[in-house]
Amino acid sequence: MAALSTTLPLSRDSVCAAHKVVKNHVHRTPVVTNQTLSELASTPTTVENLEKTRFAGRTPAKPVLRLWFKCENLQRIGAFKVRGAFYALHKLSEEPGWLEGGGKEKGVVTHSSGNHAQALALAARENGIKAHIVMPEISIPAKINATRGYGANVIFSGSTSVEREAVTEKVVAETGARLVPPYDHPDIMLGQGTLGLELQDQVESSIASHVNPAGQALRGVYAAAANKTKGNKEGLDAIITPCGGGGMLSGVALSCEGTGIKVFGAEPSYQGADDAKRGYESGERIPTVSSLTVADGLRTPVGVHPWSVIFERRLVSGMFSVTDEEILKTMKLVYERMKMVVEPSACVPLAVALFDEDFRSLVEKEAGEEGWDLGLVFSGGNVAVDALGKLIAGEK
Amino acid sequence: MAALSTTLPLSRDSVCAAHKVVKNHVHRTPVVTNQTLSELASTPTTVENLEKTRFAGRTPAKPVLRLWFKCENLQRIGAFKVRGAFYALHKLSEEPGWLEGGGKEKGVVTHSSGNHAQALALAARENGIKAHIVMPEISIPAKINATRGYGANVIFSGSTSVEREAVTEKVVAETGARLVPPYDHPDIMLGQGTLGLELQDQVESSIASHVNPAGQALRGVYAAAANKTKGNKEGLDAIITPCGGGGMLSGVALSCEGTGIKVFGAEPSYQGADDAKRGYESGERIPTVSSLTVADGLRTPVGVHPWSVIFERRLVSGMFSVTDEEILKTMKLVYERMKMVVEPSACVPLAVALFDEDFRSLVEKEAGEEGWDLGLVFSGGNVAVDALGKLIAGEK
Repeated sequence: MAALSTTLPLSRDSVCAAHKVVKNHVHRTPVVTNQTLSELASTPTTVENLEKTRFAGRTPAKPVLRLWFKCENLQRIGAFKVRGAFYALHKLSEEPGWLEGGGKEKGVVTHSSGNHAQALALAARENGIKAHIVMPEISIPAKINATRGYGANVIFSGSTSVEREAVTEKVVAETGARLVPPYDHPDIMLGQGTLGLELQDQVESSIASHVNPAGQALRGVYAAAANKTKGNKEGLDAIITPCGGGGMLSGVALSCEGTGIKVFGAEPSYQGADDAKRGYESGERIPTVSSLTVADGLRTPVGVHPWSVIFERRLVSGMFSVTDEEILKTMKLVYERMKMVVEPSACVPLAVALFDEDFRSLVEKEAGEEGWDLGLVFSGGNVAVDALGKLIAGEK
Repeated sequence: MAALSTTLPLSRDSVCAAHKVVKNHVHRTPVVTNQTLSELASTPTTVENLEKTRFAGRTPAKPVLRLWFKCENLQRIGAFKVRGAFYALHKLSEEPGWLEGGGKEKGVVTHSSGNHAQALALAARENGIKAHIVMPEISIPAKINATRGYGANVIFSGSTSVEREAVTEKVVAETGARLVPPYDHPDIMLGQGTLGLELQDQVESSIASHVNPAGQALRGVYAAAANKTKGNKEGLDAIITPCGGGGMLSGVALSCEGTGIKVFGAEPSYQGADDAKRGYESGERIPTVSSLTVADGLRTPVGVHPWSVIFERRLVSGMFSVTDEEILKTMKLVYERMKMVVEPSACVPLAVALFDEDFRSLVEKEAGEEGWDLGLVFSGGNVAVDALGKLIAGEK
C-alpha cells in the first residue's frame, strides 16, 4: 500500500480522481431495474408476518420504493473489490522511489480467501507486479485455483486471523512486498467509492431520458421517477450498500457527499456481525467480530479509516441489520425474479429494503407517497454454485 | 388461436409487424457480451479432450467467436414465450366475430407445465381474457402457484400427452375456449421471431457505436467486431437458438431472411431429443420424441409449421446437438462466469459453440481469422433454485 502521506483527502473530488484511473481497468457495470421487486418493496407486510420478528406489535410501514441495482456481481472477478485494488496499485506505482526500489519485483501481499485475493491478484498481474496471497489451508480449491489463475503466488496459513497475519508478516520480511489490506486504507475506500459515482450517473441519465438501463421506456412504478417534485428530482434519493470492513460503504458515502443523496449501511445481525450498527448507535467503533453469518463477505469489523467517514463525519445516515434467514429469502428472490447470481453478502441491502421495518418506516416518513429512488449495490456474485441449493434451503 | 386463414405470410416483414404489437407488452431484453466465454469459445480444445467424445480422432477446430447473448431469461415470466402468447392473443382479438361472440369470456386454453403456461396466463390477464391451463397433477407446486398467480384457472390432468390432450379437449367442449398451442402455429412463430429482430438491431448498434450494451467501449476480443471486412460487417454473422417445438428457431430464422445472417438450431441429443437434427439430415420430420433430457424445455418434437421454415424453406442452415453433460457444464460456466440464472434449455446454443466440433469447424472454415459475431439466445431462466446444486452436479 502507498504511504498514508500520499493519499488524497477523503472527499467526493478524490473519488472522481480515483474514477479517472479505475475506469480504464474495470467494467462500468450495468444498473438494472425490477418491477416485481419494487412492487414487493412497496407493499406493506402484514401484522401477522411481523408477529414472529423483532418488529412484533408494530403497524407495518408503507414505503414507496423504486429500486435501482448496481450490478457489481458482473464486475471483473465477480465483485467490486477490483476497484480498490486497481486504485491502490496505481497509487503505489506513483509513490516516490517505489518503482526505482524494485517495487514491482518485491510485489504486494495480502491475506484473504475471498474476493480481495482475486482482485489484488488480477490488478497486480495487469500492472506487472508480483502478488503473494496468504490463504487459509482450508480454503475451497476453486478459490485457490482462481487466485492462482491470475498468476498469484498462493501461500497457506492457519485460519485464525493471528495465524494469517503472522504468515503475512513473514512474507513482508522475506520479500519486501507491500501489504495491501482489503478495506482499511483511504486508497481502497476511494477506489470502491467509484461505483457510487457510476450509479448516480446511470440512474440520473435513465430518469432524465425516461429510458431504463435496458433501453426501454420507463414504465410501471418507475414512470413516477421522472415526475418527482421533491427529494433528488432527477436521480437517486438514497443508496444502501453492504458493510463488512466498510471500504465500500465509506467510499460510496464520499461519492455522495454534497449531492443530497443519503447513504445507509446494511449488515447481517447473526452472531453480532452488525458491529458497525452497534458501534454507530453506541458511539464507539467495535474492533472485533466473530460471526459465521451466511453473508461471508461481511464477517469483519469496520476499519478505522472507514469509521472516520461513516460515523465521525456522519456521511452515513444510518445502519440497519437483517437476519440470515432474511438474507437467504432475499437471495432466493433475486435468483427467481431477477435471474441474477449474487452471493449472500450482496443481498443484505435488498433484505433491508424488504424486511427492515425501521428502514421502511423511515422511507415512509421521509418520502411519503412520492417515494424514493433507492440504489442498492449487488456487491458480488462469487458463490459455489454446487452448494447453492443447500445454501438457499438454509443448510449451512 | 386465430384461424390459420387470418395469419400473415411467414416472412421477415410479418415478424416486423408482430414486433410492433409485441414490443408494447414485453421487455426489450438486454444483449450482453462476455470476454471470458468468447475467449474460451475461441480456444481450440485438445486432442486428449476429444478422445472421450463423439469427435475422437479429430484435429481440434480453431474458430474465432465473439459471443452476443440475448437475455430472454430476463424477459417477463422469465422466458421468451410471452412474445408468442401476446401476439397470438392480439391476432385472436382481431379475428372477425371472436370478440362479438363472447371470446374474452369463453377464454383460451393450453396444456403446459412450463413457460408457455405462465406466458399465456399473463398475456390473457393483460388482455382481459379468461385462461384455462391444463397441467399434470405431478407439476411442482411453484409452477402451479405461478400460473395461478397470473389469474389462470388451473385444471389437472394425467401426465401423458394423451391424457393432457383429452382434458384440454374437454375444456374446449365445455367452455368454448380457444386452444393456444405452444409452438405449432404461424402466429406463435412470428411472435417468438421478434427477439431475433431486437438481437440484430442491438448488436448492430453496439458495433456501429463501438460501445458494448453496458455502455462501455468495445474492447478485448470484441474490438475486432468493428473491423471486419467480410461477412456481416456491422453486425451478427450467425445466430444459434434452442430448438424444441421449433417456434423460436423458425421465428428467428424468418427474422433473418434476406439479411445474410445464418441461423442454426441447437438440441439436446439425450434419448433422441435431437429429432429436428435427425429429421433435417434424413429429410423427414420426426413427429414423436420421448426423452428426459435435462433440457426440459426441449423434450418436444418439432412442429409442422416450424418445420416448413426450418427445413422445407431451408431458412435454418444447420442443426447441432450436444449431450446433457455438455449442457450442464455450460450451465455451470454461465452461473460462474456470467452470473446469470438460466435454465438448462437456455444453455444448449452456448454448449454447441463450446463443444460441438462440427459447428466449430464450420466457423473456422467459413470465417477464418476474422471470426464470427455469433448471437446466442438465453431462452429462459426458470429453474428450481433449491435444486440447482444437484442439477449442476448432474444428479437428475
